[in-house]
Amino acid sequence: MSLPFFYAEKISAPGTLLALDEAAVRHITQVLRMKKGDRLCITNGRGKMLTAVIREQHKKECNVYIEEESDVPALQPRVTIAMSLLKNASRFEWFLEKATETGVNAIVPLICERTERTHFRIERMKNILVSAMLQSRQSWLPELSEPVSFATWIGSTEASNKYIAHCMHTEKTGLPGVAGLAGNKVIGIGPEGDFTPVEIEKALHNRFVPVSLGDTRLRTETAGVAAAILLRIR
Amino acid sequence: MSLPFFYAEKISAPGTLLALDEAAVRHITQVLRMKKGDRLCITNGRGKMLTAVIREQHKKECNVYIEEESDVPALQPRVTIAMSLLKNASRFEWFLEKATETGVNAIVPLICERTERTHFRIERMKNILVSAMLQSRQSWLPELSEPVSFATWIGSTEASNKYIAHCMHTEKTGLPGVAGLAGNKVIGIGPEGDFTPVEIEKALHNRFVPVSLGDTRLRTETAGVAAAILLRIR
Repeated sequence: MSLPFFYAEKISAPGTLLALDEAAVRHITQVLRMKKGDRLCITNGRGKMLTAVIREQHKKECNVYIEEESDVPALQPRVTIAMSLLKNASRFEWFLEKATETGVNAIVPLICERTERTHFRIERMKNILVSAMLQSRQSWLPELSEPVSFATWIGSTEASNKYIAHCMHTEKTGLPGVAGLAGNKVIGIGPEGDFTPVEIEKALHNRFVPVSLGDTRLRTETAGVAAAILLRIR
Repeated sequence: MSLPFFYAEKISAPGTLLALDEAAVRHITQVLRMKKGDRLCITNGRGKMLTAVIREQHKKECNVYIEEESDVPALQPRVTIAMSLLKNASRFEWFLEKATETGVNAIVPLICERTERTHFRIERMKNILVSAMLQSRQSWLPELSEPVSFATWIGSTEASNKYIAHCMHTEKTGLPGVAGLAGNKVIGIGPEGDFTPVEIEKALHNRFVPVSLGDTRLRTETAGVAAAILLRIR
């Protein structure tokens, strides 16, 4: 049975005490009913995995003694999914959860020509990433950017392999066929109304390879998850 | 711009009139505000694609004249996802939607030893499949079974390639490596607590190949979608 697992943005070194945050304290006290002497794991979402033991525990406070620390390497090669924001926020959140479970390294919310955007609440989105990371017992949080315009992103992204997924009936390579190439990968996924011809042209100009995600028409968030799965699960 | 697309379980031949059901009539009248002479597409979810024109249209009734019929072949090779029911019904429903978008041929809800099941409402599930099929403009509905016990299913399923995805640290083949094999494929996905050792043993006894879905720990519904994507998108 795995030890209970928590996230702490700021951690301390083995041999020191760490005060857990309010949410963690509430969960430890009221849900798990843990007590002094119980052990737990903590990650900082940047590859550090700590084991700790509860030293002091009150209703609103919990201090743990850090016993051991280990470093978990980030998943390689690096996978970045850049995806249009969606009108339906819960669909975008579903994508964030699944992309994190799959082990995507970075997520970039895009504002494209045809994006029907909603208000993007980055703190809420980060909480979803943290929950998904803890659920899947990983120790790396995907890097989540603030939303960026397609035009800005397309000309400034660097990666060994750059892909753009669109629905127009032009020459495209199947993503499975290139997913095994060495080197970091980034893929752009458009809004429900697809990228515009001008956006696709800009992508080609910036050396993005047009790719297909199969023969069926996927919703945007499904395409995002499909890309994460095909690029990460080899 | 695509024609509005509807589902009718029972259709008729070109040259005849078809009365659309209540839900379709409501959508045509109140949402799309279509009128006599407007065209639409209809599928029966079994590969038939019809074009039709509205002949009569009232508030609670709409009769269309079937103009043309075409046959769309089912996606090959055949892919069946058998997955444990989930305590959280909306997560199971997300899986149904994404599996349909991806073009899975059949879905079998499983009751495993560790399944924490909720009441399974097959009509509601079928409506989700229909919506996803129409959204992705396909003409084949995944076949959806009533829930079946793992023990019954494991001994009675026939396919060229049978896979079982589990989380135990034993010898497993990566699913991407076998996904390109010819022939029909079926894969079993277990509940959040995983299959039991006895269930895995039964699977091996029935010639299921144990497979891995990558290096991270996926939720059940994520594993189901990952399997659908890896088996269907080549």
